[in-house]
Amino acid sequence: MILRYSRPEMVNIWSAATKFRIWYEIEAHACDAMADLGVIPRENAEAVWKAKDVEFDVARIDEIEAVTKHDVIAFLTHLAEHIGSDEARFVHQGMTSSDVLDTCFNVQLTRAADILIADVEALLAALKRRALEHKDTVRIGRSHGIHAEPTTMGLTFARFYAEMDRNLARLRVARDEIATGAISGAVGTFANIDPAIEEHVCEKLGLKPEPISTQVIPRDRHAAFFACLGVVGSSIENIATEIRHMQRTEVLEAEEFFSAGQKGSSAMPHKRNPVLTENLTGLARLCRMSVVPAMENVALWHERDISHSSVERNIGPDTTVTLDFALSRLTGVIDKLVIYPDNMLANMNKFRGLVMSQRVLLALTQAGVSREDSYKLVQRNAMKVWEEGKDFKTELLADEDVLKSLSPEEIEEKFDLGYHTKHVDTIFKRVFGD
Amino acid sequence: MILRYSRPEMVNIWSAATKFRIWYEIEAHACDAMADLGVIPRENAEAVWKAKDVEFDVARIDEIEAVTKHDVIAFLTHLAEHIGSDEARFVHQGMTSSDVLDTCFNVQLTRAADILIADVEALLAALKRRALEHKDTVRIGRSHGIHAEPTTMGLTFARFYAEMDRNLARLRVARDEIATGAISGAVGTFANIDPAIEEHVCEKLGLKPEPISTQVIPRDRHAAFFACLGVVGSSIENIATEIRHMQRTEVLEAEEFFSAGQKGSSAMPHKRNPVLTENLTGLARLCRMSVVPAMENVALWHERDISHSSVERNIGPDTTVTLDFALSRLTGVIDKLVIYPDNMLANMNKFRGLVMSQRVLLALTQAGVSREDSYKLVQRNAMKVWEEGKDFKTELLADEDVLKSLSPEEIEEKFDLGYHTKHVDTIFKRVFGD
Amino acid sequence: MILRYSRPEMVNIWSAATKFRIWYEIEAHACDAMADLGVIPRENAEAVWKAKDVEFDVARIDEIEAVTKHDVIAFLTHLAEHIGSDEARFVHQGMTSSDVLDTCFNVQLTRAADILIADVEALLAALKRRALEHKDTVRIGRSHGIHAEPTTMGLTFARFYAEMDRNLARLRVARDEIATGAISGAVGTFANIDPAIEEHVCEKLGLKPEPISTQVIPRDRHAAFFACLGVVGSSIENIATEIRHMQRTEVLEAEEFFSAGQKGSSAMPHKRNPVLTENLTGLARLCRMSVVPAMENVALWHERDISHSSVERNIGPDTTVTLDFALSRLTGVIDKLVIYPDNMLANMNKFRGLVMSQRVLLALTQAGVSREDSYKLVQRNAMKVWEEGKDFKTELLADEDVLKSLSPEEIEEKFDLGYHTKHVDTIFKRVFGD
Amino acid sequence: MILRYSRPEMVNIWSAATKFRIWYEIEAHACDAMADLGVIPRENAEAVWKAKDVEFDVARIDEIEAVTKHDVIAFLTHLAEHIGSDEARFVHQGMTSSDVLDTCFNVQLTRAADILIADVEALLAALKRRALEHKDTVRIGRSHGIHAEPTTMGLTFARFYAEMDRNLARLRVARDEIATGAISGAVGTFANIDPAIEEHVCEKLGLKPEPISTQVIPRDRHAAFFACLGVVGSSIENIATEIRHMQRTEVLEAEEFFSAGQKGSSAMPHKRNPVLTENLTGLARLCRMSVVPAMENVALWHERDISHSSVERNIGPDTTVTLDFALSRLTGVIDKLVIYPDNMLANMNKFRGLVMSQRVLLALTQAGVSREDSYKLVQRNAMKVWEEGKDFKTELLADEDVLKSLSPEEIEEKFDLGYHTKHVDTIFKRVFGD
Repeated sequence: MILRYSRPEMVNIWSAATKFRIWYEIEAHACDAMADLGVIPRENAEAVWKAKDVEFDVARIDEIEAVTKHDVIAFLTHLAEHIGSDEARFVHQGMTSSDVLDTCFNVQLTRAADILIADVEALLAALKRRALEHKDTVRIGRSHGIHAEPTTMGLTFARFYAEMDRNLARLRVARDEIATGAISGAVGTFANIDPAIEEHVCEKLGLKPEPISTQVIPRDRHAAFFACLGVVGSSIENIATEIRHMQRTEVLEAEEFFSAGQKGSSAMPHKRNPVLTENLTGLARLCRMSVVPAMENVALWHERDISHSSVERNIGPDTTVTLDFALSRLTGVIDKLVIYPDNMLANMNKFRGLVMSQRVLLALTQAGVSREDSYKLVQRNAMKVWEEGKDFKTELLADEDVLKSLSPEEIEEKFDLGYHTKHVDTIFKRVFGD
Repeated sequence: MILRYSRPEMVNIWSAATKFRIWYEIEAHACDAMADLGVIPRENAEAVWKAKDVEFDVARIDEIEAVTKHDVIAFLTHLAEHIGSDEARFVHQGMTSSDVLDTCFNVQLTRAADILIADVEALLAALKRRALEHKDTVRIGRSHGIHAEPTTMGLTFARFYAEMDRNLARLRVARDEIATGAISGAVGTFANIDPAIEEHVCEKLGLKPEPISTQVIPRDRHAAFFACLGVVGSSIENIATEIRHMQRTEVLEAEEFFSAGQKGSSAMPHKRNPVLTENLTGLARLCRMSVVPAMENVALWHERDISHSSVERNIGPDTTVTLDFALSRLTGVIDKLVIYPDNMLANMNKFRGLVMSQRVLLALTQAGVSREDSYKLVQRNAMKVWEEGKDFKTELLADEDVLKSLSPEEIEEKFDLGYHTKHVDTIFKRVFGD
Repeated sequence: MILRYSRPEMVNIWSAATKFRIWYEIEAHACDAMADLGVIPRENAEAVWKAKDVEFDVARIDEIEAVTKHDVIAFLTHLAEHIGSDEARFVHQGMTSSDVLDTCFNVQLTRAADILIADVEALLAALKRRALEHKDTVRIGRSHGIHAEPTTMGLTFARFYAEMDRNLARLRVARDEIATGAISGAVGTFANIDPAIEEHVCEKLGLKPEPISTQVIPRDRHAAFFACLGVVGSSIENIATEIRHMQRTEVLEAEEFFSAGQKGSSAMPHKRNPVLTENLTGLARLCRMSVVPAMENVALWHERDISHSSVERNIGPDTTVTLDFALSRLTGVIDKLVIYPDNMLANMNKFRGLVMSQRVLLALTQAGVSREDSYKLVQRNAMKVWEEGKDFKTELLADEDVLKSLSPEEIEEKFDLGYHTKHVDTIFKRVFGD
Repeated sequence: MILRYSRPEMVNIWSAATKFRIWYEIEAHACDAMADLGVIPRENAEAVWKAKDVEFDVARIDEIEAVTKHDVIAFLTHLAEHIGSDEARFVHQGMTSSDVLDTCFNVQLTRAADILIADVEALLAALKRRALEHKDTVRIGRSHGIHAEPTTMGLTFARFYAEMDRNLARLRVARDEIATGAISGAVGTFANIDPAIEEHVCEKLGLKPEPISTQVIPRDRHAAFFACLGVVGSSIENIATEIRHMQRTEVLEAEEFFSAGQKGSSAMPHKRNPVLTENLTGLARLCRMSVVPAMENVALWHERDISHSSVERNIGPDTTVTLDFALSRLTGVIDKLVIYPDNMLANMNKFRGLVMSQRVLLALTQAGVSREDSYKLVQRNAMKVWEEGKDFKTELLADEDVLKSLSPEEIEEKFDLGYHTKHVDTIFKRVFGD
């Protein structure tokens, strides 16, 4: 985790304090369920809740762990310091450390997913606002980096919206997939602990019981979860790449917001670097890099081995923190992105109407000119634009052979931008609904 | 694609013949829709269907492409050879090559997903059958490769079932996500083609219209698709790894089926290698390797670039073909897997009852012995088993200090396997339903 | 392997015919060595060479394999058909299939590396030629896609040269690493075959004996090999990305060569897409994707398992074929890349001298103006350029406050491009030597 | 970076204090070189060294950065607080931040590589010691997890030694590749800074000048560096996997050292989990995951963009720290690995001589029995071993048909382990030299 690319709420999910708090809740709820089953005395279960407002002392737990060499035992020992050794003696009965650790990890991932979902919702709001704002702001569409046909900036925002909306759905699925808990004992047979306890704890923590576990929760769930984050990261890169292109000196159709106070801006006004979106491009790579190890974690040996653990200690916090930060940063970028409609028009006209050459070609064909002749007519005028800097429409209007087949009004119409934007409403309806 | 790891039905999806057939359907349906809109004459639309039973001549199309240097044009030229130049002149009007290529690719991926879904269903049937068959076949559960507590072979199959059942759900989501088509023109504005055409073609092909496209269908869909295949592949590795472990010489709890005729079997009866599951382990790596490039494909430049294309020409066929083959091979392995219940029991008893030491420890504590004393009692008997090859239960039954707290019947009970299997039904109900 | 992205020489390395030829050579040389040791009769060893000009019949071998279910046995059976059963009876004695397969694979990889090395050498020649040609062709250097300071096109080519020259060195190391053979028997102990045989065969095939093998050659060698190919692929992406940027409509400092005959060029002269470099970007992803599975192949179980095999059947041919094609394609692109020096100058002057603002700022400071005042002086002139379209130098020459500290000559000098190119020779000497 | 998987020396390389120290040295040496060239006054250069024993105040620099929003400027400001504003005014003249940052990063990576090299050397020493110790400790070699032919534990250690020795060579190459520095200005043209300064600074820092840079040092160097770490990580996984297999309950040929004090050991003596090597398996995945993003970092836009930076802030420390820890942990594991030669023999004899069946088969053939008959002879005896638990050698010695072709002495000889170890010395000589 890189602190400069993090936000406190997500970081907090992964703090030792939060972890111990979740452990505590798992143990306390488990005691309640055991008391319900008559497995342990009710008063012992109730005693555990005496610590319900305690902020556990992480340093003290670490101190105990230094002796016991076992994190869960250290926590239980510390818990006993709060509620009394005697009262605490049934805590964790019949459970394994993994029951606590795995359930806790999934609680953390579920909470992380909730934040990421909120992040994407905020991003969607920004994208929608900017899409509506620039619904009719015409700019040139580019395939292969080369001018193709006109589109609008609103459509650009709208497609990012649609993509992020799919990511929202994916995140929700991923969240539900990871929202399971397991308290099933050493190899998942519930030999020493009744399934009712798992059910109770899961219900209290907002999880579903893992249908079948083996000390550990199966890691295909986590693989799918991190794969989802990798896809979201890739979509961030997609948007970031568009903005980086738009901010290039020669294009300059948009700029990341650059606050007045930022030094250097006015002595080198051309030198405003799209550093946020470049940063997002790098963060996307970081999000993606956890996907394969998460998949490699699936094939644990027999009922479980511990190889996944070190991987998850890293990618659990790092990937969620990075993605949260990236989504939030991207929302800020979109929110304040400075759009230059004039430059969009200027760029579109860089080759003085040539982008319309295909429409003219088609019109000539439809007017009955042979494909070959149409091509020659367009070509000879196009070359004058390309080589001599002429204006395409002007040349066409002066070309008598063209005028034999197309009236000046028809030629004018071929350069009407409305032709290209006539279905924007339809598309917006598809993307944003009515 | 490696032919020896492929099956014809999936390979066929990716054949040139299939591709041209799909292209044909897209074009023919598009013509229908254009005729409906009055954009082209009805008879021209109808004429296209004259080719509906034609098997297109791939070699001929290649020949034309060698001249035109353009695959879609080559196909259209060949189509005209079948239906007549004049009749064909409105085919593809207003469309771009990508409209055809991208929609076709998604048709192929959707069909591939359908096969993979059927594959997983077949695998599930095999897993369920074997789970029920071995529901009560006791074997030792292992954490870290070390004996832990008893479980059953049925639970092992059941957890693979549950995992593959999740994969089934994931594949269905992935299939639906990829089942979109786009016929939206050069930059996705429908400038030259009415959205109704896209809707008609998609409906006929079983696709949904892509809400917003930009000549290409957005590649986050494909990233999610291939990520899903990577997860499924990882689950295959998980199952394969279990079987490889079970077949190890020292474990020998199961063997891949080895047909009588396979040479070498009887002169070296110990030398039956789990080559199918080892192969599956490798195939899983191949499935996984397409995930990152599919994600790298998301960030195309502006409305589209062509960098994704070469990647998809590879991973489209290769990953689906490999996964199809792997699922099918795994189903065969599961179906015929030879299980050795006697070896399972022998393995479990390798250390003569020691795996029950924890139950005994717990029983002593519950009988009022202090934790420390309980530990010492268990330890001194355990060491006799470990170092002198004694039997754990026998030693306990002969230990007077133990007998002070536990009756012989109580000791016997601690070695009852039923204790460990008492919740198998509950778990089976969770996994397989009632 | 995608045939359209392949070249015959590399494809041929991976053909069945080549493979059998290499197997033959391994077996024949091994027989010679066995005869030298007196382990088999000299005449049997000599008899094997009777087949030295035979082109083995792949279909026939496949036919035999369909029966024997074993590729090496099928080959040996076919070999016996050529040289006689009796003469052939000592062939392969004491050897395992892996001795043949692994040694053959490394021969193939070594030959593939030789082609790749030659590819990079050809690319280097092209890069060097273009670097020298455009050593002094000034263009703007860009950081973050934003104009920074002038550089030259020659320097751009030179840095690609330096990068590819490092790749050449890496490929040579990778080639040497992979150029080992092993004929060491079932678990690598030489129990049934003398080490002298391995030494002889390796020497004849241009390999070094693997110091210690275990039926298989250790896979860290292959991991390092494919990692190297992944780095080379990434460098290809680096160069391709630069060209794609240069060819963008708004930049247009270079174009992939577009042959006169390629249709559509002159009617839409602006629409020349950098499809080759976009394709190279995708091919780079394909090269990279084999790196992780090659690394996952390293941890085989005990002396060997077969999980690596399916991976290598794919990435062996696919990655080398793809990289060979990509390098060759890139060489063609570089060789014929159309450079537009005028556009480079026009781009550089897009903001009428503003890129020199930092030099002016520095000059003012050095002339004794305080940092703050210098900044204000530059700023007020810069803003006139940025907002009103004025020329920076003209404004400075008309600013009396500036003129108090800098003479007109000094101001002129700040706009001298020679300032930026004065060390080009030094850099070229570093890169290309004297 | 996960603190529990880290060692202080490597962590320290990545501390803010170390970073500022390196920045200081770069700036101070650069001043010296500028003074040598007469570009700045000698006394100003000398003044910088006044801070040579200063421990820079990281909190203070952070404080300044909070205002300036620029890390290098914040550092320079703080430096001026130590040496005086006036004395400091020429520091960093003509340099860019990247000159400092990139050179510093490579210094850090070079130092990290030095530690990793020392780590591998320590591991090699441990492997060699154990290899010599167990040179003749016979164990069964396994292919596919199945018993094949005898080998020795020394050979196992020796092959890990050979693999790690290759990694040592790779690390040395990677270290040399990354040991470059660049002080070449905004786009690498040395427009504002003489190449002599770069040469001087690099020499002082133990680096080579980057032949051609573009504000940044080209990232193919870093890609190759992290690829190398990924290979080393994979080799760690290879060794770890072997040990995990050896420690399995059913195999038990080795155990990670388990200190007497570790709780739970003696009450469940069978339950000693190979947690260190499982952990190493996970750490290997973490090492590997940085390879692809490092490769994705190569294709920066034009002279540079900043997308690589966030990636490197993560993988720079994380991967080197993880690999250092993993190598050190592995060395500890190897050093103290408890080997059980008796279990090795017991395992080898699990099928009472059957592993020798192939030698017997060969001997029969060589004694003139037809291949078919030999096979039948071996088979009928093998099946008695397999199915009835007989001893293979005993059966052979009692089989009159076998005795017709092989004398009892010859049969005995087939079971002589010396046959399998006769070339161990040769192999050791290859691996360890004389």
